[in-house]
Parts: sequence; C-alpha cells; structure tokens
Amino acid sequence: MKKIYMIGIGLIGGSFAIDIKKHFPEVVIYGIDTNENHLNNAKELGVIDEKATLADLENADLVIVSIPVDVTVTLLPIILDKISENSLVIDAGSTKEAICKAVEHHPKRRNFLACHPIAGTEKSGPTAAISGLYVGKTNIICEVEKTTFKLQEKALNLFSTIGMRIRYMDPVSHDKHIAYVSHLSHISAFMLGKTVINKAKNERDIFDMAGSGFESTVRLAKSSPAMWTPIFKQNKENVIETLDAYINNLKRFKELMERDNFSEIFNEMENTNYIKQILNGIK
Amino acid sequence: MKKIYMIGIGLIGGSFAIDIKKHFPEVVIYGIDTNENHLNNAKELGVIDEKATLADLENADLVIVSIPVDVTVTLLPIILDKISENSLVIDAGSTKEAICKAVEHHPKRRNFLACHPIAGTEKSGPTAAISGLYVGKTNIICEVEKTTFKLQEKALNLFSTIGMRIRYMDPVSHDKHIAYVSHLSHISAFMLGKTVINKAKNERDIFDMAGSGFESTVRLAKSSPAMWTPIFKQNKENVIETLDAYINNLKRFKELMERDNFSEIFNEMENTNYIKQILNGIK
Repeated sequence: MKKIYMIGIGLIGGSFAIDIKKHFPEVVIYGIDTNENHLNNAKELGVIDEKATLADLENADLVIVSIPVDVTVTLLPIILDKISENSLVIDAGSTKEAICKAVEHHPKRRNFLACHPIAGTEKSGPTAAISGLYVGKTNIICEVEKTTFKLQEKALNLFSTIGMRIRYMDPVSHDKHIAYVSHLSHISAFMLGKTVINKAKNERDIFDMAGSGFESTVRLAKSSPAMWTPIFKQNKENVIETLDAYINNLKRFKELMERDNFSEIFNEMENTNYIKQILNGIK
Repeated sequence: MKKIYMIGIGLIGGSFAIDIKKHFPEVVIYGIDTNENHLNNAKELGVIDEKATLADLENADLVIVSIPVDVTVTLLPIILDKISENSLVIDAGSTKEAICKAVEHHPKRRNFLACHPIAGTEKSGPTAAISGLYVGKTNIICEVEKTTFKLQEKALNLFSTIGMRIRYMDPVSHDKHIAYVSHLSHISAFMLGKTVINKAKNERDIFDMAGSGFESTVRLAKSSPAMWTPIFKQNKENVIETLDAYINNLKRFKELMERDNFSEIFNEMENTNYIKQILNGIK
C-alpha cells in the first residue's frame, strides 16, 4: 500500500493517518474533507501529506472513510464507483446496518470492509488526532465474508500493526449492542449536562461545586452533535430501547427513594458494583 | 497541632492523613475505625502512626471525621462531648444539613467546622488513600460563623497548606446544589451500569464492545454503597428533584427521537456542549 486516501481527517481519520505514517513511512497520505480549515490544519500538522478530492480516488490503494454516518451512507457507493479493482475501502462508522445495506448490491462490495474502531475521545477535528489512539482498542468488523480475502488480509495487517484487536460481528447485533455500551452513555452524559446547566441558570456558582466525578460522568456531553445526530437517527430503534430501559431503572430508583426503601437502594448499588470486574477487563 | 485523630481512615481520611504528615512532620496521626482490617492496613501503610479509640479523644488537637454521613450524625455529638475545650473537629460529609442540625445546640458547637471537600475517587478504604488528592480541590465550609475564630484559622491554615481552595455556603444551599453536581452523577452512573449489566445477561460479549467513553460515564458506579446509601437518604428531597429533572430530560430526548425530530436532537446536544467551557473551569 503506497497511496492512502483519508476521507474525513478529524479525530478518527487523523489518528489513523498519524499511526499509519509512523509504521509505514513509505505511504503517502492524501486527505479529503469538505471542511477546508480541517484540511489545511491537517496538512500543517503533518497529519496528511497532500490535499486531494474524490476525483483522485482511482489512484488509491486504500481509502479510509471516517465521516458522519449519514454522509457515509450516501458517499460510500460513489467512493466504490471511483476506486480501482484492487483498492480497499474501510469505514469507521458507529452504526453498521445502514452502511452495509447501502452497498450490499454494489458491484464492488467485495472491495469494502465494514469496521467500527471502538476508540475516540470527546474531542473532534484534526487537532484532536493523536498517535496511539488505537493501541489495545477493539475494532469490530462486520460481514467480513463479503470482502475479498486478499483485501481482508491487507486490512488485518494494518490493524494489527497499529495495535488493534479484532472482533467479528453481524451488523444487526453490532447496532443492537453498541446502543447499550456507547450510544446510551452519550445520551446519559448529554442529559446530565443539560439537567445541571438548566439548574445553574437559576442557582449561581453551582459548577463551583463540581468535582472530578461529575467531570467524568458528563465528559461525553462535549461530543460533536454533527457526528452523533446521524448515529442516533440510524440506530433509532435500538437507542430508544436502551433509553426505555435506562429511564425505567432511574424511575425505579426514584420510587425506592420515595418509599424510603434504602436497603433496596443499597442492593441496587451493590449489584451494580459488579461493573468493577467488567471495567478491569476493558483496558 | 500535635495530635490528630482520624475517625475513619478510608480514601478521604487516609488522604488527609498522608498530606498532613507530609506538611506537618511533627504531627502524630491516630486512627480510629470500626473496621479492624482498615485500621491495620492504615498502620502498615504508614497512613496513621497509632491505632486509637474514642476514649482517647480528650488528647486530640484536631479530629477529622470521614465516615458515612448517617454515622456522623450519631457520632458527632459524642465526639464533641469527649474532646477538650481547645480541640477542633472537622467533618468531610457529602451532606451538610443533617450534620449541622445534629450539633446545633451542642455546648461545643463552636469547636466544630462543617466541611465538604469535593475530592475523591470511586475507590474506598485506606489502600485507596493518595497523596495530593486535595491539591487544587474545593472545600465547602458551612456555617463558618458558628465556629470559634481561632479554630477557623487553624482549619484554614491546614486546608491552604494541603492546597485546597475554600468556598462558604449555608447547609441548605449546599445540599440542594450538591445533589445536582455530585449525587445525580452517581445515580446516573449506577443506573447506566445496571442497564448494561442487565442487557449483558442476555447478550453475551456486549462488554467486549465497551470503550473509554462507557468507562468514563459509568466510573462512579464502582462507588461504595455503604457510603452512598446514607447520603441519598439524608438528601432525599433534593436528590428526588434532580432525578425528576433528569428523567424528564431523558424522556424528552426519547420523544424527539420517536417523532424523528433530529434537528431538535442536534440542538439539545449543541446547547449542552456549553459544558466544555464549564468543565475547563473546574480543574
């Protein structure tokens, strides 16, 4: 692989670019982005070597698509139209069903590998891109059997070189499960942030009392609405299911408090402490 | 101050002990704890110099009480009974109204300073105690005017030496505001953890997909139920108010999704991004 085209050079694409250049110094990274500022920043920061456009994609050995998932659905078929026969296209979207569906009958379906690298921060844009973002992180690959074997190999070599571990999953299960462990966390953080901001409008100095616990719990509320709105839209039914479950658990907790059933409140928390063992396994 | 008695030598008390010894090497730290293991651990770790009992409190120059808030309410009057005329007692409880009320008519009320250091981690016990926990952190002091001026001075000197900044507040406002920025964060994390654990019972490997975002949002669900149950009990009405507001915001988000109003979903998130500026101010 000599020529890699990054479509979207924000946090996710930019961090891929940085580590690919580190491990494969012979590669030339071309950046494509509708945001001209991001493109210029990425060039100045050395995240990309050259600016490019979709018209150049025929030269690509590899195309990495890391843009909002609604744009991916529209653009992915066009990208596949433009690439050459031996080129590989990878996406990084947080939803997989709509994206896989968008290209299921495309003549170059076998040139596409559907991926979701479980990595990121609450920041966005090329200035947020960092080296090592993917080390030890999970990359979920969907419908691996639909990709040409040789191109699978290329992708796996790349992912293992930058330190990722691989899990295979079908797109429907991916979207169902990721709603719980990722999409719901974002909504819970956004609504926590909203609740406290609303309160702070009437009660001054409230944030002066906030500590590291609040900061950790609300961190994801800094995330990009442009990225997250289409994720929630594409994964609407699963996300609503998780919200229902979450709201019901909160209501039950509130009802236990109203009924002064604090021994059961204790049990609720003690049972959930089990998350310790689980989180120790994540790292 | 020569002899400091720590009642409760977990994360909060232990971290106070470590930094007090660092800055005041002449001080002898005595530990009192109902948990004999904690007491022995604290001694072995050098967090305390000597083990002690409540009967020894007459020798104390300073007593720091960092135990569950329900025990503080019961024990604080007894502690004040036992100390000498010039001794200072400080608490570290996450609620302030019930604690202040418990001693409002005590003849030694002026020997007590009601404090809430906004610091901690999700860990507990003396092995979780760390140096520097309080550096740059806020200590909320309630009803400062009810403490003898000389003892206020002693306390402020101690807090400033270990790096804390001070905010003054009445206990009612403290409990109202802290419900939003601390107590609610804990419930939101506990219920997020519960929701995902419940789901994982039926869907294996779900946690294999969890990343740093989930980890951050759910971190507080590792917290101690023995510490948090009495906090929720003492601050019941304020906590229920925050839960109502939070549940309503989550419901509204869900309804916007059900009605496919994703432009408003975008706005909800964009408005809450304002939390960035606020969090930058916390550190």
